[in-house]
Amino acid sequence: MPIIVQKYGGTSVSDTERVMNVARRIVAKQSAGNQVVAVVSAMGNSTDELLRLAHEVSADPPERELDMLLSTGERISVALLAMAIHELGRTAISLSGNQAGIQTNTVHTQARITGIETRRLIEELESGKIVLVAGFQGVSPEEDVTTLGRGGSDTTAVALAAALDAGECEIYTDVDGVYTADPRIVPGARKIGAVSYGEMLEMAATGAEVLMLRSVEYAQKYGVPLNVRSSFTEKPGTWVREEDESMEKAVVSAVTHTDDEAKLTLLRVPDRPGVAATVFGALAEQNVNVDMIIQNVSEQGTTDISFTVNRPDLPAAQKALDAISGDMGVAYLIGEQMGKVSIIGAGMKSYPGVAAKMFRTLAEAGINIEMISTSSIKVSCVIERAKVEAAVRALHAAFNLGKAV
Amino acid sequence: MPIIVQKYGGTSVSDTERVMNVARRIVAKQSAGNQVVAVVSAMGNSTDELLRLAHEVSADPPERELDMLLSTGERISVALLAMAIHELGRTAISLSGNQAGIQTNTVHTQARITGIETRRLIEELESGKIVLVAGFQGVSPEEDVTTLGRGGSDTTAVALAAALDAGECEIYTDVDGVYTADPRIVPGARKIGAVSYGEMLEMAATGAEVLMLRSVEYAQKYGVPLNVRSSFTEKPGTWVREEDESMEKAVVSAVTHTDDEAKLTLLRVPDRPGVAATVFGALAEQNVNVDMIIQNVSEQGTTDISFTVNRPDLPAAQKALDAISGDMGVAYLIGEQMGKVSIIGAGMKSYPGVAAKMFRTLAEAGINIEMISTSSIKVSCVIERAKVEAAVRALHAAFNLGKAV
Repeated sequence: MPIIVQKYGGTSVSDTERVMNVARRIVAKQSAGNQVVAVVSAMGNSTDELLRLAHEVSADPPERELDMLLSTGERISVALLAMAIHELGRTAISLSGNQAGIQTNTVHTQARITGIETRRLIEELESGKIVLVAGFQGVSPEEDVTTLGRGGSDTTAVALAAALDAGECEIYTDVDGVYTADPRIVPGARKIGAVSYGEMLEMAATGAEVLMLRSVEYAQKYGVPLNVRSSFTEKPGTWVREEDESMEKAVVSAVTHTDDEAKLTLLRVPDRPGVAATVFGALAEQNVNVDMIIQNVSEQGTTDISFTVNRPDLPAAQKALDAISGDMGVAYLIGEQMGKVSIIGAGMKSYPGVAAKMFRTLAEAGINIEMISTSSIKVSCVIERAKVEAAVRALHAAFNLGKAV
Repeated sequence: MPIIVQKYGGTSVSDTERVMNVARRIVAKQSAGNQVVAVVSAMGNSTDELLRLAHEVSADPPERELDMLLSTGERISVALLAMAIHELGRTAISLSGNQAGIQTNTVHTQARITGIETRRLIEELESGKIVLVAGFQGVSPEEDVTTLGRGGSDTTAVALAAALDAGECEIYTDVDGVYTADPRIVPGARKIGAVSYGEMLEMAATGAEVLMLRSVEYAQKYGVPLNVRSSFTEKPGTWVREEDESMEKAVVSAVTHTDDEAKLTLLRVPDRPGVAATVFGALAEQNVNVDMIIQNVSEQGTTDISFTVNRPDLPAAQKALDAISGDMGVAYLIGEQMGKVSIIGAGMKSYPGVAAKMFRTLAEAGINIEMISTSSIKVSCVIERAKVEAAVRALHAAFNLGKAV
C-alpha cells in the first residue's frame, strides 16, 4: 500500500473544529487506499504564547529549555488529532519526534536531522494505524528534546517522506499553492502548477513564505515530490519536483519580494587583501546573516563595500562595524528602509536579456536600483522599501505572469 | 551533600510571577547546602483547559492520547522554572518523566510506578545542577507517555525521594499544612505538627484533600518523611511520618468530611450465599467505587444491604442494579444527598468510648446517623449532606481539637 506523508500547519489546526476537519481529510486519504503519516504543527499562535511566557521569566532563556517548552505545542496538536480520528472510527497513534525516531544533532532551537529510525513508524503503519507525528522536533544524542527552527514541521514531513520512501509529501497550509507573486499585492497573480526544486529554493530565499528553504533543500536532496496545497479547499496545489519536460517553460516563473532589508555601505575601505574577511568575520561573530554583498572597483586605493542584512539584525550589524571601523579608519552609511524584488525562472538560463528587461521595467516605473545580484535562474534588485509593491506589480505585468484573459 | 525532594503544586506555579517565587525558594534550598530535585505540576488550571479541548473533539478520548496531551502541562512548568532559575544565576535542567527514569505500567491515565532508573538524575545532581522533574508522568514499557492520575505529582515526588534516598520530601501546596478540620468550616481549626502515615491515610480516604492517598501509601512503604507546607509563606508545615514518641498522643487528631456521597439500599434481598458477590460484581463491572457497605441481620430469610458511592457514580450504580434487581426480585432505595463525617486518631486504639462520644455528640446536635464504619484509628458516620458542616463543628468542639485559648 502506498505511503503518503502529509503536513498540516498551525492555521490548519488552530481550533478543535479545524482539527476535526483535518481528521476528515486524513481519514479520506486512508480510505482511498493509502498508509498515512501526518506531521502536525502547534495550534495557531500557541508557540508565540509559550515564547511570551518564556520571556516573562527570562530575558535570555537557555535554548535547551526553550526546546523543552516549545515542543509541547506539537504534542498537543497530535494528541487532539488522534482523538478526532478515533471519533471518526479509525485508529490513530500520536508520536513525539523522539518516538517517531527523528534523531538530530544538539544545536538546540536550530537542530538538524541526522537520521530517522523508522522501526516504530513502520510497525504502527503496518498494524493499520494512521500515524501522527509532532512536527518541528527530534531527540539529541543526549536524549534531550530538540527543535528544528522556524518551519521545522515542513522539514520533519519531508525527512519522513524520504525515510519511508513515500510517493509524495503533501504540505497543507493556509494558501492553496505557490503563486506567481503575492496575491495580496498582485490581485491577478496566478497559481503555478509545478516548479522545480531550484526555482522553489530561489523563491524561498528571496521572500516567498510558503515553504522554508531547508525543507526544499531536503526534498531536492532526496527527490521527494512536494505538493503544496490548502487544507481548507479541495483545489489542486502546486507541485515542487525535479525539473522535467512537463513543466511550463516560462522564462520567468514568479516575482518575489521582501520588505525588511537594511543596507550598509562602508566608504573608502582600503583596497587590500583581508579587509572583506575582517568585516564579514566581525558580522558573523555577532550572528548577523548577510544577504547580498557588492564591492565596487577600486579608485585611488580605496573601495566601497555595500551589503544587506535583515532589518532586525541591523543593531547587531552596527555593533560589529563600530568595533572594527575605528581600526580601519572607515565610515559607513545606513539605508534602513530597503526592500528587495526578484524574478525567478528556470527558463532564464537559455534566454538572454531577462535582466535587462527587469532593469528597464523598474526604470520606467521610476524605481531606482541600489544593488543587484544574480544567479543562473534569478535576478534580485535592492530598492527603496516604499517602492516594493509597485515594483512587484510592474514586473508581474512586464513578464506577463498573470491569469490568461 | 543531602538530597532534598520538593514538590510544587499547580497553584504554586499558576503564573510566571509565582514561577519566579518558586525559583527563589529552590535556589535558597540549594544555597543552604542541599542537592535539590523539584517536582512540578502543571500551571494553575492548564490541565483542565487541555481536558476541555480533548472533550471538544471526542466524547471518549483514547487514554493513551489523553496521556500524550495532559503530560505537556508539566513539561511547560519545568521548562519555565528552569529558565527562571537560570535568570537567578544558577544552573537547572528540566526532565520529563521519561528522562527522569520514571518507569510505569501501561495503565494509561492511572499508571503505577514500577521502578525508577536514577542514572541521569544522579549525573545531573552531581554536576551541580538543580533538577526539575515534570510531575504526574512516566514512561511505559512501550515507550509511551503515561500519567499517574489525580495528585500524581505527589506520588512522583515521594517515589523520587525514595529512589534517591532523600532525607525528606517537601510537598508545597496552597495550604500551610494539615489541619484538625477544614478551616473553611471550622475557623478555630488548628494546624497539626505531625501525624503518622496511618492517620494521614485515613484522613485522605475520608475527605482531607491535602495529600492523595497513593502518595501517602508510597511514603509509608518506603519510610519517606513528608513535610506538607505552603509555597506562599515561611511557616512550618505538617510532618507526615512514622508514628513515634514525639507525636501528640491525641485520642482524636482530626475531623474530616465529604459531602458527595450517595447511599443505596437494596430491600429484602434473599439471604443466601452469592448475593453480595452478584451485587458488588455488577457494580465493579460498571467501575463504581463502593465506599461503605452495611448488611443488617437477616429477618425471615431476607436482609437489607446498604452501601455508599461517590455521587457522580450514582447513574452507573443504578444501571448496574437495574440490570440485576429484576432477576433477584428486589427493589432499592436511593439517598442522593448524603455526606460523611469521620474522626481520626492513632490514640483511639487505647481509649475506649471514643465512638460512643462521637455518636452522642451527633445525637445532641440533632443529627441522625445513617451508616457507621470503623477502623482501629477511625470512626465514620454517613449523615444527611445538609448536616455535614454542623457535624464537623460539633465534633471538633467535643474532642477539643481547637487552638489553645
